[in-house]
Amino acid sequence: FDPSPQAVRLYLLYNHGLLHVLVYVFIMVDLALALFEEPAVVSLPLWATSAMELVCLLAITLRVIHYSKVIPRRIFFRDPKNLCIIVIITLFLIDMIIYGALYASGHSSVRWSRVLRPLLLVNVTEGQQLRRAFRSIRNALPQILVVFCLFIFSLLIFSLMALKLLGKRNLKTIDGTSYFTNYLESVFELYVLLTTANSPDVMMPAYNYSSYFAIFFILYIVINTYTFMSVFLAVVYNNYKKHLKEEVRQLVKTKRQKLRRAFCLLKENIGTNPVVSQSRWTELVKQVQPNISTAHRELLWSILDHNNKGHIGKQAFLQIADLLNIQVITLKSRPHPFQLWMPALYNSTVSRIIHRIVKHRVFVFVYDAVILVNAVFIGLDEEDPLVSNAEWAFLTLYLLEILLKLYTFEPRAFFARHQFWNWFDTIIILSALLATIINAALKSSGGYTSRQILDIVFILRVLRLIRVVDTIPSFRAIIDTLTRIGPPMLTFGQLILVVYYIFAMVGMELFKGKIQVFAANSTDPAREYCGNPLLKDSAFARNNYCKNNFNDVVSSFILLLELTVVNQCLNLVNKVTFLDFILLLTGGFTAVTHNAARIFFVLFHIVVVIIIINIFVAFILEAFFIEYMVEKTDLHTSLEKKIE
Amino acid sequence: FDPSPQAVRLYLLYNHGLLHVLVYVFIMVDLALALFEEPAVVSLPLWATSAMELVCLLAITLRVIHYSKVIPRRIFFRDPKNLCIIVIITLFLIDMIIYGALYASGHSSVRWSRVLRPLLLVNVTEGQQLRRAFRSIRNALPQILVVFCLFIFSLLIFSLMALKLLGKRNLKTIDGTSYFTNYLESVFELYVLLTTANSPDVMMPAYNYSSYFAIFFILYIVINTYTFMSVFLAVVYNNYKKHLKEEVRQLVKTKRQKLRRAFCLLKENIGTNPVVSQSRWTELVKQVQPNISTAHRELLWSILDHNNKGHIGKQAFLQIADLLNIQVITLKSRPHPFQLWMPALYNSTVSRIIHRIVKHRVFVFVYDAVILVNAVFIGLDEEDPLVSNAEWAFLTLYLLEILLKLYTFEPRAFFARHQFWNWFDTIIILSALLATIINAALKSSGGYTSRQILDIVFILRVLRLIRVVDTIPSFRAIIDTLTRIGPPMLTFGQLILVVYYIFAMVGMELFKGKIQVFAANSTDPAREYCGNPLLKDSAFARNNYCKNNFNDVVSSFILLLELTVVNQCLNLVNKVTFLDFILLLTGGFTAVTHNAARIFFVLFHIVVVIIIINIFVAFILEAFFIEYMVEKTDLHTSLEKKIE
Repeated sequence: FDPSPQAVRLYLLYNHGLLHVLVYVFIMVDLALALFEEPAVVSLPLWATSAMELVCLLAITLRVIHYSKVIPRRIFFRDPKNLCIIVIITLFLIDMIIYGALYASGHSSVRWSRVLRPLLLVNVTEGQQLRRAFRSIRNALPQILVVFCLFIFSLLIFSLMALKLLGKRNLKTIDGTSYFTNYLESVFELYVLLTTANSPDVMMPAYNYSSYFAIFFILYIVINTYTFMSVFLAVVYNNYKKHLKEEVRQLVKTKRQKLRRAFCLLKENIGTNPVVSQSRWTELVKQVQPNISTAHRELLWSILDHNNKGHIGKQAFLQIADLLNIQVITLKSRPHPFQLWMPALYNSTVSRIIHRIVKHRVFVFVYDAVILVNAVFIGLDEEDPLVSNAEWAFLTLYLLEILLKLYTFEPRAFFARHQFWNWFDTIIILSALLATIINAALKSSGGYTSRQILDIVFILRVLRLIRVVDTIPSFRAIIDTLTRIGPPMLTFGQLILVVYYIFAMVGMELFKGKIQVFAANSTDPAREYCGNPLLKDSAFARNNYCKNNFNDVVSSFILLLELTVVNQCLNLVNKVTFLDFILLLTGGFTAVTHNAARIFFVLFHIVVVIIIINIFVAFILEAFFIEYMVEKTDLHTSLEKKIE
Repeated sequence: FDPSPQAVRLYLLYNHGLLHVLVYVFIMVDLALALFEEPAVVSLPLWATSAMELVCLLAITLRVIHYSKVIPRRIFFRDPKNLCIIVIITLFLIDMIIYGALYASGHSSVRWSRVLRPLLLVNVTEGQQLRRAFRSIRNALPQILVVFCLFIFSLLIFSLMALKLLGKRNLKTIDGTSYFTNYLESVFELYVLLTTANSPDVMMPAYNYSSYFAIFFILYIVINTYTFMSVFLAVVYNNYKKHLKEEVRQLVKTKRQKLRRAFCLLKENIGTNPVVSQSRWTELVKQVQPNISTAHRELLWSILDHNNKGHIGKQAFLQIADLLNIQVITLKSRPHPFQLWMPALYNSTVSRIIHRIVKHRVFVFVYDAVILVNAVFIGLDEEDPLVSNAEWAFLTLYLLEILLKLYTFEPRAFFARHQFWNWFDTIIILSALLATIINAALKSSGGYTSRQILDIVFILRVLRLIRVVDTIPSFRAIIDTLTRIGPPMLTFGQLILVVYYIFAMVGMELFKGKIQVFAANSTDPAREYCGNPLLKDSAFARNNYCKNNFNDVVSSFILLLELTVVNQCLNLVNKVTFLDFILLLTGGFTAVTHNAARIFFVLFHIVVVIIIINIFVAFILEAFFIEYMVEKTDLHTSLEKKIE
């Protein structure tokens, strides 16, 4: 590391918050280009999207070059993430040139580089958390793979048994198609049965044939769905936690090393002990966290320097990073602005009584009661004039509550950053007020009601009711625990975005335009079969699933989300109609691609069900397990002691 | 405790293993009576079942009386389990008299005491484990309830939103029924959506209406199905573990207290230290575990008495119970019987070569290859004469393998208790051989093939393939971990039995005979609607679900099992047809019972999904978490050290 002033300035610039945000903005814009490229939600000409992409790439390239200036060249080229980004950008350019040339000459080709886009998110310098998550998954893979192989083995054994026991029975689903007649079909049917999605279809005919076959299916589901899925959860949970712990330990080690080096630079010798004096320390903290208050800084120093020696040793110095990370909320008991402006009125008897009332517990109960009554009114028919007028009364009551609270408590304290519920209340009530007024204005002006506005009003009304949760302590505890997993969930969200984006891009290239959506009032006969003759008389078209398609990036994301969260949705693609669906999707393709399409869906299901969902569950489990045995760190405690 | 010889004899008799088994046999017979009572699988006259029940009750009463003689009267009457059993038996007798009297006078009534039968299983003295499990659940209930309330709150909020947003949209399922039009219906529809069972039905029309509604459903499923269900898992797992730990700690404390008292009785004073001499200790062990070998006993003593002082102190004495619980497998390297009978032949060169071959790794690989080839052959069509002849070849190969192993290894070591896979192999191969021979005999005698026999042959053939798991160490580790949860699973199985039995009894009383099953070749027009005119044209009857009924105890159990493991099966009862189903089930009932029936199913689902399944998952998670950080106890280690 080069400690020259110029290098330091470059480094500080590199770490500037705005640049971090900008990088993410450019990446997001690049990802969002999928909305405008063919197959598009909003179609833009090719030159526009290409130009946008070039700008984004340029920005990222600049960022990488900046990074290469900041750190030594040797380290830069040894780091896989930098090499990755360079390779990705090169591939982007190559693909863009090829695609552009083919497009200009009238040929169409595949924009394969779009699949690589989310990798930018992973490999950019700011994506440490995400890289760590991916590394954790990669490290957990060997163990997951072992369980997965065993699971596949069990699946194969059960399929063989199903083939032998049920294949000759000539069983037919309600739709009249026979099943379990071919080994690969059996494997596939049983894989879908994992999600218990097609259970009545494949189970009831066998059960009707003989009660003993129910035992076969129940055994299958207990072993494969419940036992193996639990084992997957155990393995993922354990590995993810273990590797994350390992990474954190590494991180802590590196941090300590760096702090130790900083200490060596800053130390002065008093006697034989190397120490850091208070003045240097203060200077350092001022540099590192300029927005920290003097009182806060002195508090921190007094914690490190127990005995008021005016200097601290190495051990105490190493705590600085942890100490600076502890959020100390400075609750300044500022006087209420009204008290400054009109003290006589604000301190009058009536005003004091209002304060007493607002701070009283009964005030909270009264408003909880109001919310409950409001819930009943929401449930009633809003066409009734009594109900729609009552809405104004409720709005007034809620507004009154907020105003009273603002009158009693200091506004800046009321809207402090950690006062989640106050913010929630105010925003919901104000937007509800706004929407209701707009709605009323529209109605009175022309008797016309906008459905969108009305929907928003309804949603806001219902959301208001959530406030009740805040008054019940045990509910609040659960919600708090859940909100605590918010920050790690952000990383997790990026991880999901990466996985979904890749699958969406591949899916769009494979299946775009195979299914068409028709307006509800369309009279086109093709509407009966989603615009694809292959789907004629299929359950897929009959059940109106046409909207589940890969025609644009939004539909793709929704379809993938459905496949993730709704077991039934694998059925939606599978059921008796899965084969139709696949056949249809791969309509013009060869038999090889037919299998490839099936692999696409199963692969997605495996990745998502086995890894993504289990990580999600692991997060929640971990948050609650920690909640149940939470202990504050020593530093926290000593900080609290000092404050008292 | 009365230490007179008579009391001790009574106590020993009470704790005799045979009596424990007998008690369970009587309880099981009592539970199995449901098979023969109306509505019966096999109908028996009332006097026969009543007589059987009386015998069972008598046996249990005798057992309780015996118990009351063994322990002090004061403790006996303070123990709730004894009072419970006395009350239950009294209620049984009362119910039997009432029912008998009404039956004799031609009236029919409800045998309500049958619901209480599984409580015998819980309250009998031997059921400590089961009682402990129930206590754990009871202790976890408050926390579960809090989460449950929050979950219900979320359900209600979402339902209100669904009602407001979608209710007016006039959405219709494929069957043409509209939904979300009434608040309670919305709550119910969304509850079923939890299991994602009715998702395409309620989701697709809304999604077709507008893509935004997909967000509503996905949000609902993510929050309620995934988040809340994970929170339930966390709470159940944590509480169950915590309370079980607490119980175990209590148990250990009681054990130590008792051992301390035993030490006080047995101690002699050497100098100032109270000690127990080796002779007394040996005497004690002989009394407590008569079947322990002298060598084993001396080994145990040498562990306790490190320094060969000939006596042990209090600390060492307290370890006796743990020490006796460690299973030491005495592997006597006995000579092979052949070596004794014909040493010349057994030690000849050819024989030695055979031994070498069998013990070689390649031998295992060859047989794994044979199994794989066999798997392929099983998958082929068994009508082909080549395949059916190959089966004989495979059977011969497997038999040869077992014989070779028996020739090489000492038979008693080969069939030792812990050699699970050897037992598995031998039993599977021998039964396969037997079944194949019977099948061939039947075929050649009259060309007639029994389907049952053929099914068994197929199952045995497929099971043979499982053996492959044993050769892959990482697979074996997982299987071992899973088998380790076997013993606690037994308690869990009893718990499930209790819950299911109660629900089955209630379900049978409510719904028996409402749905009829007709033979596949029946020409009765009632077959079209499961024998109930209310079901005419319902999806329930159309999809051939008639066999899902409460007509007898076996069907009830299968239906409840399906409801447990197959999400889709709540759909099977619910879907669009749930209301039909309920209406049908409660055909002649009043509107009150109509709601009661719905409550019955939802209650079952809540109990099973929230508690039972989560406990199951918790077991598996716990087993794997422990597996990942297993450490042998100190005693184990010191025992192993001594042996070396």
